[in-house]
Amino acid sequence: MPIIEMHMLEGRTDEQKRRVAAAVTKAVSEALDCGAETVRILITEHREEEFYVAGLNKAQRAELRERQS
Amino acid sequence: MPIIEMHMLEGRTDEQKRRVAAAVTKAVSEALDCGAETVRILITEHREEEFYVAGLNKAQRAELRERQS
Amino acid sequence: MPIIEMHMLEGRTDEQKRRVAAAVTKAVSEALDCGAETVRILITEHREEEFYVAGLNKAQRAELRERQS
Amino acid sequence: MPIIEMHMLEGRTDEQKRRVAAAVTKAVSEALDCGAETVRILITEHREEEFYVAGLNKAQRAELRERQS
Amino acid sequence: MPIIEMHMLEGRTDEQKRRVAAAVTKAVSEALDCGAETVRILITEHREEEFYVAGLNKAQRAELRERQS
Amino acid sequence: MPIIEMHMLEGRTDEQKRRVAAAVTKAVSEALDCGAETVRILITEHREEEFYVAGLNKAQRAELRERQS
Repeated sequence: MPIIEMHMLEGRTDEQKRRVAAAVTKAVSEALDCGAETVRILITEHREEEFYVAGLNKAQRAELRERQS
Repeated sequence: MPIIEMHMLEGRTDEQKRRVAAAVTKAVSEALDCGAETVRILITEHREEEFYVAGLNKAQRAELRERQS
Repeated sequence: MPIIEMHMLEGRTDEQKRRVAAAVTKAVSEALDCGAETVRILITEHREEEFYVAGLNKAQRAELRERQS
Repeated sequence: MPIIEMHMLEGRTDEQKRRVAAAVTKAVSEALDCGAETVRILITEHREEEFYVAGLNKAQRAELRERQS
Repeated sequence: MPIIEMHMLEGRTDEQKRRVAAAVTKAVSEALDCGAETVRILITEHREEEFYVAGLNKAQRAELRERQS
Repeated sequence: MPIIEMHMLEGRTDEQKRRVAAAVTKAVSEALDCGAETVRILITEHREEEFYVAGLNKAQRAELRERQS
């Protein structure tokens, strides 16, 4: 049944999404020894203002590096 | 507490979303014998380029069938 | 494709899970007019110490009511 | 590793998102005694037609109250 | 940032989980052209009574096939 | 409505979970200016063999550091 939710920053092309879905399906199907048709992938894109590491988003981390350099 | 996340392809009307939310709430509330007001439903829509079965999205599966017929 | 994640407190019997899965599948399939075989349901159970409303879990809310009565 | 998915109704400003991400990161880091840089937060916004309590969305609940008053 | 949640039926060995995590990380990193250290994978296992296709779990589908054959 | 899913490695005590839930609820409620009773938190614990960074789990990363030192 593998059901795979992929969260990524927006900005990838449809071509990249197709490529990553194909590659992940192959990887899962081989590693778990299950049919590719049982693998489902859901992609959710997040805007930069919707992803935080250490409480900062990408723009905030860039500003921080700027100020520290 | 049932909290229910529904992932679906985009394209449903608001009317359809209201109908499915009402029907699922009733189903959960009756089957689990809990108050409807404890049931929360979150809908997330995915574009066609964001859902893959066997590593292919809807357009790719249609192309494949086309070529095979 | 509807893929449905249901979060619920642990303690339901297998029979209840089967019943709620069957009822929700029927509700989704009818309301969205899609084949039942396209509906996938994932249940995740949470212990009482893993679900909080207003920052309190079930035991804490019971204590609070006790003290307030 | 704490990875935190926050679902909220759309309409918050970027400033509010930054503020909630910073506050939650601090809260998690202190309460679990782990480095802030291990905390990741993903925000997913939902339109009003995508969130239901007791089978009703915000507009439907407002109508209901209207009719009952 | 890719953050990947993998839902699978329980029963895989730790060795299989390590293998699938390594393979998926490599696939994502190559297809999206991002560093492997930015890829995080969360595995959630589900018991057979917690996964339904067309409203039936694995045991129920086996019974059905039995009865139909 | 904020609904918050927290994924963390298993091993935290119930006391720590209560503390983090209370702290996150307060942070969200203040930063988003919404009532604490609208905030719901779901905790999901993952075993060490179920969380991977750069394709390696905690034990594998420790081994790697060991070998590199």
